[in-house]
Amino acid sequence: MTGAAAPRRRGRPARTGAGEGPGARERILKAARTEFAERGYDKTTVRGIAKAADVDPALVHHYFGTKDEVFAAAIEVSFEPAMVIPEILGQGAEGIGERLARFFIGVWENPATRAPLLAILRSALTHEAAAKVLRSFVLRRLLERIAGDLDVPDPKFRAELAASHMIGIAILRYVIQVEPLASADPEEIVAMVAPTLQRYLTEA
Amino acid sequence: MTGAAAPRRRGRPARTGAGEGPGARERILKAARTEFAERGYDKTTVRGIAKAADVDPALVHHYFGTKDEVFAAAIEVSFEPAMVIPEILGQGAEGIGERLARFFIGVWENPATRAPLLAILRSALTHEAAAKVLRSFVLRRLLERIAGDLDVPDPKFRAELAASHMIGIAILRYVIQVEPLASADPEEIVAMVAPTLQRYLTEA
Repeated sequence: MTGAAAPRRRGRPARTGAGEGPGARERILKAARTEFAERGYDKTTVRGIAKAADVDPALVHHYFGTKDEVFAAAIEVSFEPAMVIPEILGQGAEGIGERLARFFIGVWENPATRAPLLAILRSALTHEAAAKVLRSFVLRRLLERIAGDLDVPDPKFRAELAASHMIGIAILRYVIQVEPLASADPEEIVAMVAPTLQRYLTEA
Repeated sequence: MTGAAAPRRRGRPARTGAGEGPGARERILKAARTEFAERGYDKTTVRGIAKAADVDPALVHHYFGTKDEVFAAAIEVSFEPAMVIPEILGQGAEGIGERLARFFIGVWENPATRAPLLAILRSALTHEAAAKVLRSFVLRRLLERIAGDLDVPDPKFRAELAASHMIGIAILRYVIQVEPLASADPEEIVAMVAPTLQRYLTEA
């Protein structure tokens, strides 16, 4: 989704040579993800992202706009795994709870996908601006896609209840690390949670 | 639980007059709750708490010890509502999911109890020291009490799954504020969540 370089806008300042060129956009996004994950929303600046990406700050503004817009673009990539959820839902109602629970646990078990998601959650919990970006850009679009595939009353409400459970498990298991949940076999969690998701997403 | 003044320890420095006296301990706790809630774990200092409570920092150390120990004492008070959970569980298996769901939503709906819990959650999500205090002091004791009343396999695991769902709902509803969950009638949430808690806490 973010793989293609954006077309250059008219009226952009002339080439400065400050790190511009093919791949600059990708480099900025990568730097933004690292900066937001490591420093948190508050302490991350467009200047800092530009420095880490070895480009001019004007180029960050050119490609993405404000800090909030860089944040939205950076976290969107972290939600890419979630974009397969409609596909999981599309496989039919039978076993949907189990497939979804296993998918979520898999995303959280993988440190490469867990780290940026936890960073986003931390930012959203501590900064209203970050919460707003998550709510208005990413979650809304994702939840709308999921809800569109559900055949239940209040599909968005149901999708949110399912999501809330998986988020809460991630927090207790990976962040606060309460036992025995922190050391439980992923399949044990899937076995308990699957019927819950199944009910939320399929039962009227 | 924290209402009674602690007995004075031997060998404490002589009275300095710096805000000491009846109620100093309570004043320190109250100041600690406010400081941790408003500044977060990281930026709160024993010195800052002492200043807000109008006592000498030595008195804070005397009553509570380290910053972590002040944090534990401060958050313990916020978990007081949770201490009635064993009572809720004691009323028997029938309808336990509904009673518990309604209780949790009630705690989160009340700004006076919600604010300190969210502050604790924020601190635990952003600082390992705070997560450790929450995990080792408060949650462990609370979960042990709850698990002791459950007649299911892995009662602590079950209690944690139930808790994870309620924490996730609180985050999506009150912090990230996704719709329609953010504006849903509390009873609508109770109706959906009650069977989930019922299953976790009572079904083998």
